[in-house]
Amino acid sequence: MHKRETADDDDELSLRLDRESPTPLYRQIEVGVREAIGSGRLIAGTRLPPERTLAAALGVDRTTVVAAYRELAADGLVHAHVGRGTTVAASSERFPAHGRDALAAGGSGRRLDWRQLFAPMVEDDPALADIAALAGREDVVSFVAGVPAPETYPTRTFRSLLAEALGPGGEGLLQYSPPEGHGPLREAIAARMARRGMPVPAGAVFICGGSQQGLYLLARALIEPGDTVAVEAPTYLGALQVFRAAGARLVTIPADREGLDPDRLGEVLERRPIKLIYVLPTFQNPTGATLSLERRQRLLAVARRHGVPLIEDDPYSELRYEGESMPSLLTLADGPASPVIYLSTFSKVLFPGFRLGWVVAAPPLIERLAWVKALVDLESNPLAQWAVAEYFDRGGFDGHLAKLVPVYTARRDALETGLRQEVGEMLTWRSPAGGFYLWAHLAAGLRAREVLAEASREGVAFVPGDLFHVDGGGRDALRLAFSGLAPTQIAEGTRRLGAAARTVAERRAVARGQGSIRSTRIV
Amino acid sequence: MHKRETADDDDELSLRLDRESPTPLYRQIEVGVREAIGSGRLIAGTRLPPERTLAAALGVDRTTVVAAYRELAADGLVHAHVGRGTTVAASSERFPAHGRDALAAGGSGRRLDWRQLFAPMVEDDPALADIAALAGREDVVSFVAGVPAPETYPTRTFRSLLAEALGPGGEGLLQYSPPEGHGPLREAIAARMARRGMPVPAGAVFICGGSQQGLYLLARALIEPGDTVAVEAPTYLGALQVFRAAGARLVTIPADREGLDPDRLGEVLERRPIKLIYVLPTFQNPTGATLSLERRQRLLAVARRHGVPLIEDDPYSELRYEGESMPSLLTLADGPASPVIYLSTFSKVLFPGFRLGWVVAAPPLIERLAWVKALVDLESNPLAQWAVAEYFDRGGFDGHLAKLVPVYTARRDALETGLRQEVGEMLTWRSPAGGFYLWAHLAAGLRAREVLAEASREGVAFVPGDLFHVDGGGRDALRLAFSGLAPTQIAEGTRRLGAAARTVAERRAVARGQGSIRSTRIV
Repeated sequence: MHKRETADDDDELSLRLDRESPTPLYRQIEVGVREAIGSGRLIAGTRLPPERTLAAALGVDRTTVVAAYRELAADGLVHAHVGRGTTVAASSERFPAHGRDALAAGGSGRRLDWRQLFAPMVEDDPALADIAALAGREDVVSFVAGVPAPETYPTRTFRSLLAEALGPGGEGLLQYSPPEGHGPLREAIAARMARRGMPVPAGAVFICGGSQQGLYLLARALIEPGDTVAVEAPTYLGALQVFRAAGARLVTIPADREGLDPDRLGEVLERRPIKLIYVLPTFQNPTGATLSLERRQRLLAVARRHGVPLIEDDPYSELRYEGESMPSLLTLADGPASPVIYLSTFSKVLFPGFRLGWVVAAPPLIERLAWVKALVDLESNPLAQWAVAEYFDRGGFDGHLAKLVPVYTARRDALETGLRQEVGEMLTWRSPAGGFYLWAHLAAGLRAREVLAEASREGVAFVPGDLFHVDGGGRDALRLAFSGLAPTQIAEGTRRLGAAARTVAERRAVARGQGSIRSTRIV
Repeated sequence: MHKRETADDDDELSLRLDRESPTPLYRQIEVGVREAIGSGRLIAGTRLPPERTLAAALGVDRTTVVAAYRELAADGLVHAHVGRGTTVAASSERFPAHGRDALAAGGSGRRLDWRQLFAPMVEDDPALADIAALAGREDVVSFVAGVPAPETYPTRTFRSLLAEALGPGGEGLLQYSPPEGHGPLREAIAARMARRGMPVPAGAVFICGGSQQGLYLLARALIEPGDTVAVEAPTYLGALQVFRAAGARLVTIPADREGLDPDRLGEVLERRPIKLIYVLPTFQNPTGATLSLERRQRLLAVARRHGVPLIEDDPYSELRYEGESMPSLLTLADGPASPVIYLSTFSKVLFPGFRLGWVVAAPPLIERLAWVKALVDLESNPLAQWAVAEYFDRGGFDGHLAKLVPVYTARRDALETGLRQEVGEMLTWRSPAGGFYLWAHLAAGLRAREVLAEASREGVAFVPGDLFHVDGGGRDALRLAFSGLAPTQIAEGTRRLGAAARTVAERRAVARGQGSIRSTRIV
């Protein structure tokens, strides 16, 4: 009865194995010994049963016990001596560096400092995380994110389309698919663009995971660390993040109400090499401004003259609330010498969840993007691509767009009305003719971050303008996204914003008053 | 009647504007003038109508004509002289650099050489594109890609789940969502992992776009150009591509039938700093080998001793066709000092189209991955994430897995039977106990690329082994993926493979014969 003896004699161990448990047997043994050591039942120097003996006693393979003992040895809990068996280590040996925490959790060895292992990347402004947290609060009216209004999503139509897609033979849409995109979606996009005056071959259309991924892939394909990218000031924060992460230096081109000034870009290009120009010519994020036709042409002439590629980021041009549409840079620069890389997305005009956007570019760049895409995530979801292609092919989109325009027009108008009534002369802005954003300037030297601090107490959130600038500009500005809020929420939000701005202005006035008193004393 | 005169007199121009057309008016004018010049109706030196005159004649705004003329001037087709108006340029001026092609297509300026603009990246072996093309041919039996069998996809179940998801209130699943993943899916994965003996908190689970994206994000988060990554030889091609693209140097650890040799890894770590270790311990791609328990422990001990993080890539461990399951490195290394980053995917056990995989890692790394993910594509599709979470929560997966195992066992067996019958002694291999791949060695000095060239003529495709090696090893090896082919296709494929191998072997024999004759002559 050797087997039973060993198990019985070994009272300090009293191992019980559960063969139904998902925990491997060797691990159960290890945990049992660990507990016996931890509780003091097994003290330093105690010899553990020989592997073969314990294995026989427990009815397990010897390698199972070997595995358990090796784990304990790796943790410094026991010593294995050739010819002398395995003994429990002294406690001082057991808790050398990082002590009982690691032991209790079953870990051992050199604890990794993960942050030290990270590849360096330009860190975000910490304010971003604070703003995101504020915007996520239930009690806050958030003008932060440019989200499309969920009540406009063609959810039922897509429900039917997906059900149809996954009917008989639908397996093909759950399979791997080409990195450059699902053929029918590339064709549907080309057809839609042709109807909008931008005829492009389907082969020039590349499908990406939203325009964010489009930007990322373009940066990965084109930017080397140290390259310079020219951007508008202010511009889309997500683009700044992507270019910074790619190691690009950013040079800013001042913009006014008509968008960026091509002459200033030309001056920059005369002085230094620029790898890429990034512009949002229509209903810009954050300013809402639209580049005039004349500036579009001058911008293209400058880019062409210097042979610099230009990304035209165009998520909003179909969301026009007044005025006539403007030809895209892609249209204006038509032809094989075009420097334009066109980028757009379905996230704003349909919904963001499918993560689908597209790039129109020259064939060599499409090929390169497909290669980078295959590295990054192989491809975009073919089922979602099929559904969007069908949605366009069946002609549902024009009607959808016609419904969006009054919804967003009403929201923009509600915002302007609310701002005029509630914030009054402390804010100035230019009414955006389309898109999702209103860009406003604070009067009287007020700073947007100061107002934001107060706004968080009032229960309203927005993005301070300096986050859209590279070099600290825009401190008096704030971006208000009106797309995701109902008019009543917008009205409430402007009331809170007005209260916050007034509090800051009054505090300023008091401070100024005190300051002047003090200065009288000193002078 | 100045207006009409201008339009009438201007016979050479004869512009007709179509106000219904999606092409902007300025562009129609531009094209009209361009055609008039191109056809020779307007010759060099001809003065175009003044902008204001032409605008009045055509009933358009003057800026429209200005835009058209500016476009023509940018293309070098006309000259604008202050005070002298706009004149047609001489043809020699019009076709300076890239000639009539660009003109015909409406382009102008410096034509970009896109390839010159690309950021440098390590290029793929050109054989890859050839193999992909071969595998895509209708008449070819392809053992190339490790695709799951489409006939096993739970398509109907997912059809119902998606329909349910997009019922009332479904808009929320088409909205933006957190970069680290949809909460319920993180919880469902944690629950499933706990049932498999890998208890992890849901907060340690990060959702990514398939394991390809998991690898990409990990490389982006951890690797700087010049860092060294240790990989098995041979290993997963997609991982080699990602690490190379990240600028990593690769050091290979030899592997045998039991997987990589931890002692050899230890020797490497003594000699040089390694930033990351990448292993596929279970049903490895390409070899099908599974690392023994004892080696797993030694591997972890080595990684711990040197404080080097280790990616455990584990797409196949649930697809076991015989033998008992093996604890993952994640389980074995449990605890806060664990160096293990666990990576898996739904692409092999469900289907690839949803592009969903996951990483289990320490909190600081999860946070970093979420940040990189937000740069790369913001998030993964929340609708797809919800559907997979529900699928797991409702308990459908165990039954699904039980159906997969006999399907793939039969395919593996069909492949081995076919290889024995049709290729015979020219191939040796070890039967894979799970996964999607059989790794075979050619006898008699045959090279896999030679056989592949012949195989393409016979109508069968596979991946030659050297593509899974960093430094030219594996020339005698080939990887055969059996997962995506029905047993009858597999039988046909092995017949073709046998014919190809015999042709190459016979050619070799002849060449050897000739060689020996020649050498008799010379000696």
